[in-house]
Amino acid sequence: MDPEQRIRASFAKQGLMATLGATLGSVAPGAVEIVLLPGPAVSQQHGFVHAGAVSAIADSAAGYAALSLMPAGSGVLTTEFKINLLAPATGDRIIARGRVVKSGRTLTLALAEVFAERAGQERLIALLTATLMSITGREGIED
Amino acid sequence: MDPEQRIRASFAKQGLMATLGATLGSVAPGAVEIVLLPGPAVSQQHGFVHAGAVSAIADSAAGYAALSLMPAGSGVLTTEFKINLLAPATGDRIIARGRVVKSGRTLTLALAEVFAERAGQERLIALLTATLMSITGREGIED
Amino acid sequence: MDPEQRIRASFAKQGLMATLGATLGSVAPGAVEIVLLPGPAVSQQHGFVHAGAVSAIADSAAGYAALSLMPAGSGVLTTEFKINLLAPATGDRIIARGRVVKSGRTLTLALAEVFAERAGQERLIALLTATLMSITGREGIED
Amino acid sequence: MDPEQRIRASFAKQGLMATLGATLGSVAPGAVEIVLLPGPAVSQQHGFVHAGAVSAIADSAAGYAALSLMPAGSGVLTTEFKINLLAPATGDRIIARGRVVKSGRTLTLALAEVFAERAGQERLIALLTATLMSITGREGIED
Repeated sequence: MDPEQRIRASFAKQGLMATLGATLGSVAPGAVEIVLLPGPAVSQQHGFVHAGAVSAIADSAAGYAALSLMPAGSGVLTTEFKINLLAPATGDRIIARGRVVKSGRTLTLALAEVFAERAGQERLIALLTATLMSITGREGIED
Repeated sequence: MDPEQRIRASFAKQGLMATLGATLGSVAPGAVEIVLLPGPAVSQQHGFVHAGAVSAIADSAAGYAALSLMPAGSGVLTTEFKINLLAPATGDRIIARGRVVKSGRTLTLALAEVFAERAGQERLIALLTATLMSITGREGIED
Repeated sequence: MDPEQRIRASFAKQGLMATLGATLGSVAPGAVEIVLLPGPAVSQQHGFVHAGAVSAIADSAAGYAALSLMPAGSGVLTTEFKINLLAPATGDRIIARGRVVKSGRTLTLALAEVFAERAGQERLIALLTATLMSITGREGIED
Repeated sequence: MDPEQRIRASFAKQGLMATLGATLGSVAPGAVEIVLLPGPAVSQQHGFVHAGAVSAIADSAAGYAALSLMPAGSGVLTTEFKINLLAPATGDRIIARGRVVKSGRTLTLALAEVFAERAGQERLIALLTATLMSITGREGIED
């Protein structure tokens, strides 16, 4: 399976992404994009997109960026992430762009920038850094 | 409105919590509990609860713990959080328990411990620390 | 070597701790204390203890708490930490108390609470969470 | 005072930087560089530069990048930072480059990349993200 197919097949298994209505955007080696549409189903109490939903797509974008550089057969798990939320998440689309900062044998550092797009203009609303662990040879943990 | 009613009314407006099937557990001044049931709708690719869903309930639990100590009329926004994921999130129930570490005029530090319960036994699976900002006098940002 | 001797011998090799004038306090399995005296040598521009010095003793306290539970012959490295600074670091003594949250084969999560002591009263001024990695069989990386 | 002079004057008051032997490199609006020389005085137990020393220069570089964009008369305090440590800090020089990600009225997000230079080659060894708070009108908290 080529790397893009691998990411797309794995993303299709993330029930949470379907539940949130998130979709996979562009996929390249070390760089993955996920898109979320604002709306009541993903909101917090003031009507903005919930920090948890922003974090979910940012974490997935970072994780798939990491997975895209890992050897076939290995799986990826997030061991930690931090997210700074810079502005309320509103607009036409929320776009998380993950990319690998440093790829290691066991641990990979990735970051994700999250943008709110309104009328074609993007604004940075959050920044995530995440540590991803490569898991090999554990049953059920692949991709 | 008493503090518990305030938290319950705000939680009911978080569309994301309904979408995830998360429910509010106990609510006390400075301490709030949120419960999530594992299942395909909140899963990642290996069948565990997605780190984003774990983060969402942990962030909300920490945020509401902070809000429970803020003056009436103020609203709460997360400015940043970090979560360490200690073990795959599986089991009968995932329980996030938020509590305030230090409450300030503008910024509050809260943490949330997340437990996986299986057959009545709880195991710590994640730890979140979050900075919450108190917002006053901004239209639409209340509770 | 017993665990306390192991930690004390390793601490004595941390040139930075001597440079900062930091000293090792109590050492128990999974819990280690480090003490720093405020003063111009460790200050930032307003005269408070520098966040970097607070972080240094908090990181070491968390790291040694982790090392105290690792098998003999293994070494400890910090892979990431986050610190929330709650109040300016001033007073008679700054005390970092590290303890293990979850000890794993490869990764350990530890936290450190940092207190400022003035006239015998302690106040929480910072909270750190850190991921520590156990390293085995790499030359020069022991304790 | 011009912005560069302001940063250089404030840096000269950071007793910790002198104690560590750290020096200020280039200073531009929103971007500040700090340099540290490895050696026993800033080491941890295996002889690498201590994570606390790496964090101290990274935090200062991020903080001064933030201060460089703040109005005269305001002071800067770090409220939180996270650092991911990617490789042991060794080499001829350790260089922290801070820059502002988003500048706000009260809170600024900055990051710092830390490089180890050996034989003229740089390698990324750490990444820090920090929240800086602008303080105005509090006696003794300036620059």
